[in-house]
Amino acid sequence: MIQKVEDSKTAKSLFPNSKRVYLKGAVHDISVPMREISLSETKLPDGSTEDNEPVRVYDTSGPWGDAKFHGNVEKGLPKLRQHWITSRKDVEVIEGRDVKPLDNGFLSDKHDQRTRERSQELPDFDRSEIEVLRGLNDKPVTQLHYARQGIITPEMEFVAIRENMKLQTLREKLQTSPDAESNSLNHQHNGQSFGASLPDEITPEFVRDEVARGRAIIPANINHPELEPMIIGRNFLVKINANIGNSAVASSIEEEVEKMRWATKWGTDTLMDLSTGKNIHRTREWILRNCPVPVGTVPIYQALEKVGGKPEELNWEIFRDTLIEQAEQGVDYFTIHAGVLLRYVPMTRNRMTGIVSRGGSIMAKWCLAHHRENFLYEKWDEICDIMAAYDVSFSIGDGLRPGSIADANDEAQFAELKTQGELTTRAWNKGVQVMNEGPGHVPMHMIKENMEKQIEWCHEAPFYTLGPLTTDVAPGYDHITSGIGAAMIGWYGCAMLCYVTPKEHLGLPDREDVREGVITYKLAAHAADLAKGHPGAQYRDNALSKARFEFRWEDQFNLSLDPEKAKSFHDQTLPQDNAKTAHFCSMCGPHFCSMKITEDVRRYADEHGFNDENDAIEKGMAEKAKEFLDAGAEIYSGSSSAE
Amino acid sequence: MIQKVEDSKTAKSLFPNSKRVYLKGAVHDISVPMREISLSETKLPDGSTEDNEPVRVYDTSGPWGDAKFHGNVEKGLPKLRQHWITSRKDVEVIEGRDVKPLDNGFLSDKHDQRTRERSQELPDFDRSEIEVLRGLNDKPVTQLHYARQGIITPEMEFVAIRENMKLQTLREKLQTSPDAESNSLNHQHNGQSFGASLPDEITPEFVRDEVARGRAIIPANINHPELEPMIIGRNFLVKINANIGNSAVASSIEEEVEKMRWATKWGTDTLMDLSTGKNIHRTREWILRNCPVPVGTVPIYQALEKVGGKPEELNWEIFRDTLIEQAEQGVDYFTIHAGVLLRYVPMTRNRMTGIVSRGGSIMAKWCLAHHRENFLYEKWDEICDIMAAYDVSFSIGDGLRPGSIADANDEAQFAELKTQGELTTRAWNKGVQVMNEGPGHVPMHMIKENMEKQIEWCHEAPFYTLGPLTTDVAPGYDHITSGIGAAMIGWYGCAMLCYVTPKEHLGLPDREDVREGVITYKLAAHAADLAKGHPGAQYRDNALSKARFEFRWEDQFNLSLDPEKAKSFHDQTLPQDNAKTAHFCSMCGPHFCSMKITEDVRRYADEHGFNDENDAIEKGMAEKAKEFLDAGAEIYSGSSSAE
Repeated sequence: MIQKVEDSKTAKSLFPNSKRVYLKGAVHDISVPMREISLSETKLPDGSTEDNEPVRVYDTSGPWGDAKFHGNVEKGLPKLRQHWITSRKDVEVIEGRDVKPLDNGFLSDKHDQRTRERSQELPDFDRSEIEVLRGLNDKPVTQLHYARQGIITPEMEFVAIRENMKLQTLREKLQTSPDAESNSLNHQHNGQSFGASLPDEITPEFVRDEVARGRAIIPANINHPELEPMIIGRNFLVKINANIGNSAVASSIEEEVEKMRWATKWGTDTLMDLSTGKNIHRTREWILRNCPVPVGTVPIYQALEKVGGKPEELNWEIFRDTLIEQAEQGVDYFTIHAGVLLRYVPMTRNRMTGIVSRGGSIMAKWCLAHHRENFLYEKWDEICDIMAAYDVSFSIGDGLRPGSIADANDEAQFAELKTQGELTTRAWNKGVQVMNEGPGHVPMHMIKENMEKQIEWCHEAPFYTLGPLTTDVAPGYDHITSGIGAAMIGWYGCAMLCYVTPKEHLGLPDREDVREGVITYKLAAHAADLAKGHPGAQYRDNALSKARFEFRWEDQFNLSLDPEKAKSFHDQTLPQDNAKTAHFCSMCGPHFCSMKITEDVRRYADEHGFNDENDAIEKGMAEKAKEFLDAGAEIYSGSSSAE
Repeated sequence: MIQKVEDSKTAKSLFPNSKRVYLKGAVHDISVPMREISLSETKLPDGSTEDNEPVRVYDTSGPWGDAKFHGNVEKGLPKLRQHWITSRKDVEVIEGRDVKPLDNGFLSDKHDQRTRERSQELPDFDRSEIEVLRGLNDKPVTQLHYARQGIITPEMEFVAIRENMKLQTLREKLQTSPDAESNSLNHQHNGQSFGASLPDEITPEFVRDEVARGRAIIPANINHPELEPMIIGRNFLVKINANIGNSAVASSIEEEVEKMRWATKWGTDTLMDLSTGKNIHRTREWILRNCPVPVGTVPIYQALEKVGGKPEELNWEIFRDTLIEQAEQGVDYFTIHAGVLLRYVPMTRNRMTGIVSRGGSIMAKWCLAHHRENFLYEKWDEICDIMAAYDVSFSIGDGLRPGSIADANDEAQFAELKTQGELTTRAWNKGVQVMNEGPGHVPMHMIKENMEKQIEWCHEAPFYTLGPLTTDVAPGYDHITSGIGAAMIGWYGCAMLCYVTPKEHLGLPDREDVREGVITYKLAAHAADLAKGHPGAQYRDNALSKARFEFRWEDQFNLSLDPEKAKSFHDQTLPQDNAKTAHFCSMCGPHFCSMKITEDVRRYADEHGFNDENDAIEKGMAEKAKEFLDAGAEIYSGSSSAE
């Protein structure tokens, strides 16, 4: 049995002063979840108070983040999309592939059984009420396919509402009182979007259009009905991905399920399951049935397990079978390293760090061992047909990404990127949704070239990068070296940022590393949204800064990406309860606070009539000041100093 | 007595596999310290080994970082520069100002004595053998003054050697074997420097020239002879500053001394003492006598203490006396908020977060209370004369910097920046070295404008920014939100980055926060050096990546900015000693490692003759691959799949 986790250090703890709200769709019967943070009131200098509107934020935690939801992991999440999928009447229930002992890394059922008894592993998830779906007659059932036909699916409307957050309300308010623009929560700087096409409002039709032209994807396997749809594309909020996974060295299934909930609680938009040890299939099942965000995998990892870890023994048969196995389970996107072509491998010969992508190195070894072209490239069209029938999206791998600053933007990397572009076009022709993976290790000044080439060569398909890390010299801090690159490439147009934890290059991330990695990438993505000028992005910054300025400590904590950490940091210096209502902070103490002094300045300015509505007085002040400026030195030397 | 701190968690612990080396000057009799990291040898596939040259890195820890130094904090550091200063024959020994009880926040000696007995504070530093120096006849004794006369001071040669690190050796090597360029530790990408003038080699004459034109400063008070000279300028390595300080709420003197050593151990290039509580003078004395890096202060903080914390009671007399007090002690640079002009204050009226700079808000309040121009502005020339006589550099404060994304790049901020430019010119006319402080909170796309305006308006004087923070939504992670902005503005031309710790906005940083803040800023500064193309900057990245690729774990840790953390992260997953010599890592386990596979690929490629020296074979390979490409699908389907 799964141990019940109740204490506040687990994913079960909810965010403070927050409640789950649901926004209704206009076209479809849908409810889009958001987290609404309540704020306390502002105390005005005259003693009166002013309400602060609650702030709605994007919520990736799924039903687990709703206090009213009482499900459990044994049952899995409700099947939100089941009806949407079946009512399209283009899928059929199939018997599905038998799960084999090898799927979990065992040679026979007996081996499996014995090992599991010894190690007290989890049982299989109960699939007795789950049917496996596939596109009728293997036809495409992808969001891209529907979008091209002009169909706005419930998934599309769902993401449109989700992306807008408070935006619509805000805009209505602005129309009724345009003065609210200046110095208000609605104020937002114009962004610089490098040719992106950010709309004023994200409509379902806009979503459809972006998906239709391949500029955005909604990864949503028809066998993962638990998923709450989200969109990945340059003209939407920048998304992040967190990786979890077993390895031969550590981790357990139970940890994986909690890890998934933990990562989505903190805000990861998608999750990649990179498991490589035993029980891959079983672990993935637990995750998928409980996961409200899209799940991606690298199927070659499992295929490799099936051939005893020897890349040269991989073949199309095993790989194809693995694709079907995972597609039937509900994996939403596959990383496939089909761009590692035989002729590119020698280009890595003189690199500082060779090939650092696992998938890339596996395929490179396969190519050399067989002296043949990468079979993933050869079988691309067949792979596309399989993925179209379940709506699994491509994340075309960058197997030759640079593993060091020295190798950034080299011949091998860009040769593969061009091939990713070719594969993108071919996948689109088959109706499959596509994003492209990118680096890696790239110094700041060479990041933009990556984005520009990807947009050009891959025809604006969404880009999905790992960092990039902007230096090699800080192992232990690679979430930060990569967070810098991630924020920048997100600004330039990257659609999703794959997180890097502090343990990168060193070890397996634990819970705190996952949290640190997710929050770092949330803030990097948000920095990118602000810089691009995503409509409404600045609202949360404004609300938090207003709270900060007004010494509404609890509101400041609660509006943070990590309220718990913000509060605990405050409490380390000022643990007293009344410090949270104090009009000073620990940095300067009660008698010396710039925010406090600014309040005084503001009050003073008000009393003396220095404010926008009173230009005349302000002008008078400026003139008076000018007098002092001109005559100043003399007056001052007389009044204040013997010098 | 000061408690002896011996355990490995204090600043006393030295870096692993490192030794202190000293490089001799060619012009002057000087020894420039560096840390040299020894590396283990590379094991080649044929069983032979190859040495890896030690890597020299910039070292800010001073004598404390030399295992052979056996000084103690009671005695202070050796007076490295004493002879340089006196042999210029332009200083005189003066009696100096008497230290008053008020300097430490007490009304009388009795108050001071009583409080100190009660709280068992540190005694005063023994100054019986210390003389106070001042420029003869109050004449300028600044590095700028010397530079303009064409004099290359020992300080200038010192920083030239320090900035070059291994560069010269490297270049000599390149000349003898130019082939070493490709795929070697010497490889470095061309930078993009936005008009900076990075030389191939930093010569003493280049340093002199940069100082003479005001484009760089060497903060070095003649009363701080313990200091090891360093340079701040756009054409040099990007520097970082760490703040420490007492406050009314917490901290003790002993902590401050250790904090200073701790911050310089991890690599801060300068230190600002922002103390505001009791014992300001006494704390500063302990810090200065033991500090190998320039120390900056904000004198208005201490002046404010002297008038009981009431900004409106400040006056020129008190301020001037404080400047002299601190200049005689040896403070190397002063932040002075002279650009907060009376007429700018109303511009902040409708800001989201008003005035967040302490100095700025103090002066704003003073201006409004007196309805007069900022007395720091009025007295600028007199302030310059004082600072020139001790070689205290200006860090012209940005009192109106934005405290939130909403307030970035607004009228108030840029109005002050223009005035900073005017003050810069006036200080230069008096022979005083100058840098300018900058923001603050700025979204990514608005950062460049700050740098461009500063360069234009302040005539290329060095820029010194706090972050900037690129979002407001991540209290608890503001070292990261600001590290992003810091790396970017460093790339654009900012000369020094003031660190932000995880506790920013929330509480007082503890030791781990200081370390986290310093390392974050070291990596941001390094990312900027790489992007600008500072000569030799990539050497350390290359050495670390080579170690990583060759599974030289200890070398990878030791080359990191924080070896201790890197090693402990590795040990959390693989604590065994043999894991540090293992040719695999914890992420993938022993049987599944991309680096391992790449080694195999390389070996395979070597055996089959795929390498640069053998173009013909490589070409043959590419052709062969093309054949497969053309015919591939058919061959594959026959051989591996029934599909």
